[in-house]
Amino acid sequence: MSDLEVRVARPADWSQIWPFFAGIIRDGETYAYPDGLTSDEAQVLWLEPDPGHAVVAVDGDQVVGSAKMGPNRPGRGAHVGTASFMVSPEARGRGVGRLLGEHVVAWHREQGYRAIQFNAVVETNTAAVALWCSLGFQIIGTVPEAFDSRSHGLVGLHVMYLKL
Amino acid sequence: MSDLEVRVARPADWSQIWPFFAGIIRDGETYAYPDGLTSDEAQVLWLEPDPGHAVVAVDGDQVVGSAKMGPNRPGRGAHVGTASFMVSPEARGRGVGRLLGEHVVAWHREQGYRAIQFNAVVETNTAAVALWCSLGFQIIGTVPEAFDSRSHGLVGLHVMYLKL
Repeated sequence: MSDLEVRVARPADWSQIWPFFAGIIRDGETYAYPDGLTSDEAQVLWLEPDPGHAVVAVDGDQVVGSAKMGPNRPGRGAHVGTASFMVSPEARGRGVGRLLGEHVVAWHREQGYRAIQFNAVVETNTAAVALWCSLGFQIIGTVPEAFDSRSHGLVGLHVMYLKL
Repeated sequence: MSDLEVRVARPADWSQIWPFFAGIIRDGETYAYPDGLTSDEAQVLWLEPDPGHAVVAVDGDQVVGSAKMGPNRPGRGAHVGTASFMVSPEARGRGVGRLLGEHVVAWHREQGYRAIQFNAVVETNTAAVALWCSLGFQIIGTVPEAFDSRSHGLVGLHVMYLKL
């Protein structure tokens, strides 16, 4: 269907990630990031050093999505991983999210994690919720009114979980 | 019953917090902190600057417990608070945890938070779970096997919630 592939993110990719990252934050529908986040600050948060790991989905030279992953907690919680995802709006409908999601699950298996936990999936982000469920994740619980969606007002945040 | 009181934590309090903080981490039953955490690193994590807020429970000049609190997420999630608690083992059974818990709830109300969320209450820490339930918190869900307890092995982490 396309020549999409997933590879490790490089610092030089950031200039292509930041435009859609910033747009997604500005939309205010899916992620709780600090207000007024600069490109430099966002790069530090997204492209974390080891044991964090970031990848990009590319179509040739074009970066169309990115995911970051790593331990959800340090120390005695580090056997459970977590991840975050951003897909360029221009690339929606091409399966970029699914490709990144499958990569994230495979990476956690390879690294020996016992499970993956998403801490804050916005309940009105139904495409994401459906995608994670199709990959085997379940909703552990929903914190009511924990996210201030720009278009829906206060909505719940799902904690989602996949045992590996 | 005692002359316990709660006041804002000062940098000079750290030398009294660190011994029980370090002991509680070393016990491996209640918190996922990085392995090999130094006193300086822990002080930065615990005594966060504004909008974070830390308090101590004191009996005269003696620090017998501490709590930190603040927004659970930045930006569009900052209307929900969170907190962490440490009580000196020598002061257990004197109501220090309850006093700190009541203070944390009152502080969040005063600051205009809409709710408080605890992200990771170890399910075998039954004294803490019972205390939070007695203050009105409910268990939203439990992430299975997410904490490696030194004495119990892999146990669940409760997400707990209080609407204000």
